[in-house]
Amino acid sequence: MLSRIDWVISNCRLLAGIGAEYEQTQPFAGLTIGTGIHLEPKTVALLLTLARGGARVVSTGNLNSTQQSAVDHLRAHGLTVIGGPTRDQAVHDADLAEVLSHRPDLILDNGGDLFARYLENPYEGLRGGTEETTSGRARLALLREQLAMPVLVINDSPIKQFAENRHAVGQSVLESLMRITNLVTNGRRVTVFGYGSCGKGVALNLRNAHAVVTVVESDPVLRLEALLDGFLVTSREEALSSADVVITVTGARDVVTAADLDLFKDGVILANAGHFPIEIDVPGLRSDARVAGVTAYSDGIEVLELADGRALRVLGEGHMVNLTGPRPLGNSLESMDLGFALQARCLEAVARGAVDAASCVVPVPADIDARVADDYVTGVTGAPSLLSAAG
Amino acid sequence: MLSRIDWVISNCRLLAGIGAEYEQTQPFAGLTIGTGIHLEPKTVALLLTLARGGARVVSTGNLNSTQQSAVDHLRAHGLTVIGGPTRDQAVHDADLAEVLSHRPDLILDNGGDLFARYLENPYEGLRGGTEETTSGRARLALLREQLAMPVLVINDSPIKQFAENRHAVGQSVLESLMRITNLVTNGRRVTVFGYGSCGKGVALNLRNAHAVVTVVESDPVLRLEALLDGFLVTSREEALSSADVVITVTGARDVVTAADLDLFKDGVILANAGHFPIEIDVPGLRSDARVAGVTAYSDGIEVLELADGRALRVLGEGHMVNLTGPRPLGNSLESMDLGFALQARCLEAVARGAVDAASCVVPVPADIDARVADDYVTGVTGAPSLLSAAG
Amino acid sequence: MLSRIDWVISNCRLLAGIGAEYEQTQPFAGLTIGTGIHLEPKTVALLLTLARGGARVVSTGNLNSTQQSAVDHLRAHGLTVIGGPTRDQAVHDADLAEVLSHRPDLILDNGGDLFARYLENPYEGLRGGTEETTSGRARLALLREQLAMPVLVINDSPIKQFAENRHAVGQSVLESLMRITNLVTNGRRVTVFGYGSCGKGVALNLRNAHAVVTVVESDPVLRLEALLDGFLVTSREEALSSADVVITVTGARDVVTAADLDLFKDGVILANAGHFPIEIDVPGLRSDARVAGVTAYSDGIEVLELADGRALRVLGEGHMVNLTGPRPLGNSLESMDLGFALQARCLEAVARGAVDAASCVVPVPADIDARVADDYVTGVTGAPSLLSAAG
Amino acid sequence: MLSRIDWVISNCRLLAGIGAEYEQTQPFAGLTIGTGIHLEPKTVALLLTLARGGARVVSTGNLNSTQQSAVDHLRAHGLTVIGGPTRDQAVHDADLAEVLSHRPDLILDNGGDLFARYLENPYEGLRGGTEETTSGRARLALLREQLAMPVLVINDSPIKQFAENRHAVGQSVLESLMRITNLVTNGRRVTVFGYGSCGKGVALNLRNAHAVVTVVESDPVLRLEALLDGFLVTSREEALSSADVVITVTGARDVVTAADLDLFKDGVILANAGHFPIEIDVPGLRSDARVAGVTAYSDGIEVLELADGRALRVLGEGHMVNLTGPRPLGNSLESMDLGFALQARCLEAVARGAVDAASCVVPVPADIDARVADDYVTGVTGAPSLLSAAG
Repeated sequence: MLSRIDWVISNCRLLAGIGAEYEQTQPFAGLTIGTGIHLEPKTVALLLTLARGGARVVSTGNLNSTQQSAVDHLRAHGLTVIGGPTRDQAVHDADLAEVLSHRPDLILDNGGDLFARYLENPYEGLRGGTEETTSGRARLALLREQLAMPVLVINDSPIKQFAENRHAVGQSVLESLMRITNLVTNGRRVTVFGYGSCGKGVALNLRNAHAVVTVVESDPVLRLEALLDGFLVTSREEALSSADVVITVTGARDVVTAADLDLFKDGVILANAGHFPIEIDVPGLRSDARVAGVTAYSDGIEVLELADGRALRVLGEGHMVNLTGPRPLGNSLESMDLGFALQARCLEAVARGAVDAASCVVPVPADIDARVADDYVTGVTGAPSLLSAAG
Repeated sequence: MLSRIDWVISNCRLLAGIGAEYEQTQPFAGLTIGTGIHLEPKTVALLLTLARGGARVVSTGNLNSTQQSAVDHLRAHGLTVIGGPTRDQAVHDADLAEVLSHRPDLILDNGGDLFARYLENPYEGLRGGTEETTSGRARLALLREQLAMPVLVINDSPIKQFAENRHAVGQSVLESLMRITNLVTNGRRVTVFGYGSCGKGVALNLRNAHAVVTVVESDPVLRLEALLDGFLVTSREEALSSADVVITVTGARDVVTAADLDLFKDGVILANAGHFPIEIDVPGLRSDARVAGVTAYSDGIEVLELADGRALRVLGEGHMVNLTGPRPLGNSLESMDLGFALQARCLEAVARGAVDAASCVVPVPADIDARVADDYVTGVTGAPSLLSAAG
Repeated sequence: MLSRIDWVISNCRLLAGIGAEYEQTQPFAGLTIGTGIHLEPKTVALLLTLARGGARVVSTGNLNSTQQSAVDHLRAHGLTVIGGPTRDQAVHDADLAEVLSHRPDLILDNGGDLFARYLENPYEGLRGGTEETTSGRARLALLREQLAMPVLVINDSPIKQFAENRHAVGQSVLESLMRITNLVTNGRRVTVFGYGSCGKGVALNLRNAHAVVTVVESDPVLRLEALLDGFLVTSREEALSSADVVITVTGARDVVTAADLDLFKDGVILANAGHFPIEIDVPGLRSDARVAGVTAYSDGIEVLELADGRALRVLGEGHMVNLTGPRPLGNSLESMDLGFALQARCLEAVARGAVDAASCVVPVPADIDARVADDYVTGVTGAPSLLSAAG
Repeated sequence: MLSRIDWVISNCRLLAGIGAEYEQTQPFAGLTIGTGIHLEPKTVALLLTLARGGARVVSTGNLNSTQQSAVDHLRAHGLTVIGGPTRDQAVHDADLAEVLSHRPDLILDNGGDLFARYLENPYEGLRGGTEETTSGRARLALLREQLAMPVLVINDSPIKQFAENRHAVGQSVLESLMRITNLVTNGRRVTVFGYGSCGKGVALNLRNAHAVVTVVESDPVLRLEALLDGFLVTSREEALSSADVVITVTGARDVVTAADLDLFKDGVILANAGHFPIEIDVPGLRSDARVAGVTAYSDGIEVLELADGRALRVLGEGHMVNLTGPRPLGNSLESMDLGFALQARCLEAVARGAVDAASCVVPVPADIDARVADDYVTGVTGAPSLLSAAG
């Protein structure tokens, strides 16, 4: 019986096409690519694709997320993996340092960790690379004078904004609510904090699942957009006190805290869909004097019983809900495939010297967005390519 | 840490309210209720509620679906459970016979098994009961002369049609496609066979998940409804050859067979959402001469590789997709709670003699539908009851 | 330049097909069909079709709705039209009597007027006919012993329920709100009274136009359905006091009255979508002591200014909103075409003696529903017919 | 009875609030504002508001769109209106010149006409102003060196993009299809050319009206977005040959031409929703040799009969469909009110010298977007303002 990794790889069709092309074109021949990213089935498909393009791939995982089966799979295919699953920051730091000790020509970064460390101990030959996240972009933008090399920020691509942030995150949050609680969404009042790309997707998917959605947003223009998109817009107090489910997806800290305890309906479900577990202050809620008891259920559900008889139900301790609970799936394979195709094409462009060094810390070039989008649409629908043969 | 069963019970609010009432009113005092139903967390909540109403509950499970934890939980609460998990029909037959040997006053039936056996060996005192399924209704309708007692058919309630068949099944099929495959629904072509209540729900939930849905339906009036509801209606051939995903939910046999093999797109996913695993002829597909190989993936995915290079991907061997694959959830807790509240109220009505014996094999009485609906809406929304205090 | 009537006729494709068939088959050869219905462009297409089938058509209009251009068109094509536009009940009564004086063999009735008058002065040879409305059905059902002939009730067809009541009425109410007020629906709070077929359509179309819809419904089961369909369900008071727009579509009298005056938001729009102008008590609102003034705007908008500064805006004096205001369109041509095809096929079946007299006052026979549905779907989509050649 | 202009003014609540404020603050005291815009009920509300702020308003209309009732209303309120309805370009040119002869301090421009003419005959004292359109922005951007004053481009505001282009245009196109044809949208195949903001709105509104929508888009990234948003994406040929309705909204010329004649289905409806009547080549279609005849219907519908028996139905001769046909409404009052509030606030900012001259030809400043958005949301919903008192 084939494994989940095999299933994932067989469904990353953009990577499969790129890998087949790279076997011919060898864009990374003689080059080392260094990276420290989540090592799980989906990233395996990306790293194997880079290796098919001639790269020597040197990778390590992130703190607390590395899957041993992914490490094993990569090593079985000849890639260098440093370290293994760890929750020890010092161990992780050493692993990252070891990646850089291989003096990669290209860096595939996540949060700016490798580029920042490189600047502490620079070496000759680094051509640039990619950065996945918005927070990494902010960190590296401050270092652009020193970097003076192209760093393409994947998350700034419009494709990432609509394919991953709006659609894939929105849907996986819905899926996670069902998966963890098995409760109905129909007719439930759901309050979404944040109406950025992710918040738009969460609100839309919940409404499409027949919930009544209220949006709380601190930017007036986005709040107007939420209203015209047909969502309830109310005061923060009304949004909290009417909610059967509260979902935070703002990127900000302390969106929901113990200061809100008196507002909640009995049985309210609290879930965070933002990247960091800082939006719902779970420790503060747990330790509040009004909380008479805490009961843990299986599957990552925690019930806070208030002295007045109400109960709050917190999912996954406020960690990103679509990566918590039993058997989390995360975003759809195709949305990951799109993001990884952008990664591969961007690294290829840097490797070829097709990106000006002066363009340090910039979004994905428009021609790469266009090519990846075109490959996806033609692959799925059979519609003709919009790009010329030479494109 | 509390278990899944505890979570389920704590979310069956209608049953909780009925149970509290029953502890006062004791509608089943001195009566035995016999049943043979799936024994899993949700039915546990129902049987415990009946016991709170004074019933002596004698239950056994169904073939191949009994969960030991459910059995243990029931026994720990003093209910009589006959037998345990079994795949042996003879063992199951003996278990059912043993249920009837307790001479139940009321039967909570599923598929007509217990009522039919009762007629083979009738005894004095049976007052009637409930039947869950449409197929059980058809079976018992033929026996109505002999039965001459009220048998209320739960599935005929409009509440079951919209709450469970349309909404809950529709949503759990969407959830199951995501859960098993982790593939995107956006922009995918999905063909749904059948536009009854379940088919309507499946089509709607998939469209709301941004798929493009084609409906194939053999009843002209339902086909017109599908068209006006905004779904693509095409020839069967076009519906199959354009599909990325095919879902059957007709109740009929051999909806998709090896005769369709030449039509499928490479990579098509085949899933059944009908009650019985007869709609997609999986054995016939597997053994067709055009199938060059079969590869099993984890999580219940089977890939049939055709000699011409195409592949078909069958989920859960054609069994009801929302009960297959890893960690199946089935329908939402609230939709089950609604159905169980109907069961409890119907058994109560029969116990009280409130249903005329002449009304044998009939839908749920309208006043019970109204009461259960009203309790649900007032509980969820806080809106005032529409029923008078005497109602 | 061709007229609106020509446009309508050219878009009634089912009638066109039936008319072409009837020219060959002459199902009404030698028969007189008597009717009293709205005479406007759409009914012209129906009456011309019956004439193509050999019928001698004798028609008059309804009170207050006859369009002279329709009368002229019918007469120009050789049909007998009695009377013309009138608001005088005595004149209308005489017109109906004159229709019956032609001793029609078949009656196409609307509200039961002609059948009821026939029973007062029966004559030999009447074979039966059709009745359009639910209220007419109720009236005739009381007379079934005396009638003793088949009267097929068009509105009971499932096709009418979903094609006309849910979809066409729902959409034309949305269109009418836009047409009359030119105000935005996005983000507006809309309260719909009634969740029957029409109410479902109104609620769905408004939500799809990005309004936030609250449903008020007095039947507990329908109220539960509204909740699970994702609409807000609240107390009647909250539903009124939160509304920017109130739409009644219940069939009942005095749904909204002066007793609600204190609840309304400033600027609320009141519109009725039910058949009769009895759901909003406009006279009672106008004459309430709290109303300080009334201002009429063009296009059928009336503003009631309350002494406390608030204003209510009533559309079309509470008449069916999709038939009031400037240039009302009513339901879509295709939905009318479907209903008229049912009418023609039902009259044909009665003419042929294909309907048992004992079946007096019954829904459209299922085979006619199936045939009309099948003709529509195959005509629009090109999908193959589901009916055998003999069907 | 009050007129349509009164209705419009009474529903422009943002302008009403701004006007009341301006009566106190007099931001335009002593200043002349010159403008040449459509003069119809909605713009009347804007110009009256500017006058309330102390401005001397000198306006003329556009070619072929001025409504005499609007001119009369403005003059009755003491504003200067030059000329009247005209289709003569020379007359219009003279009117524009006369506006500039008043040496306005601020220009409210539309298409760049007045700023461009100003540069031909500059005078002292012009402080800058606003430009409504994207095409005007392109024209003025080339002149920015010479202008050297702030020109704020309204259409670049995100509010305009989502409130007007996506939502209001999308909905008014749906409304226009219904208004002109009275045909059903349910189950119809609609092909939309263009997936910019307007195209997104058209596609969404049509899908929400239960049509099946195919999108044709020449930008690969937008085409991917359309696919993931759940629309059919096909080859251009399939998109045309499957369509019951074709809507162009691209901004480009010759999107649909006689070269497509062989692809169309019989009865296809062709409508343009782009600003200029250049997207569907109506003259080329009419004069094609395959067209055997042309029939005009009332309400702006033209039927082109092909020699092979098919017919094409063109709405409004290819002019912007929501401004053609009987009683066109255009966009919702509230969407216009939003745009006009941006206009007023931008002119106020320029009048106050709050915008740096160096910022020539730029979008609406973010603080103005925020303020207008906040005023709208608080006014409609009663939710608290997100801006501090000083904001």
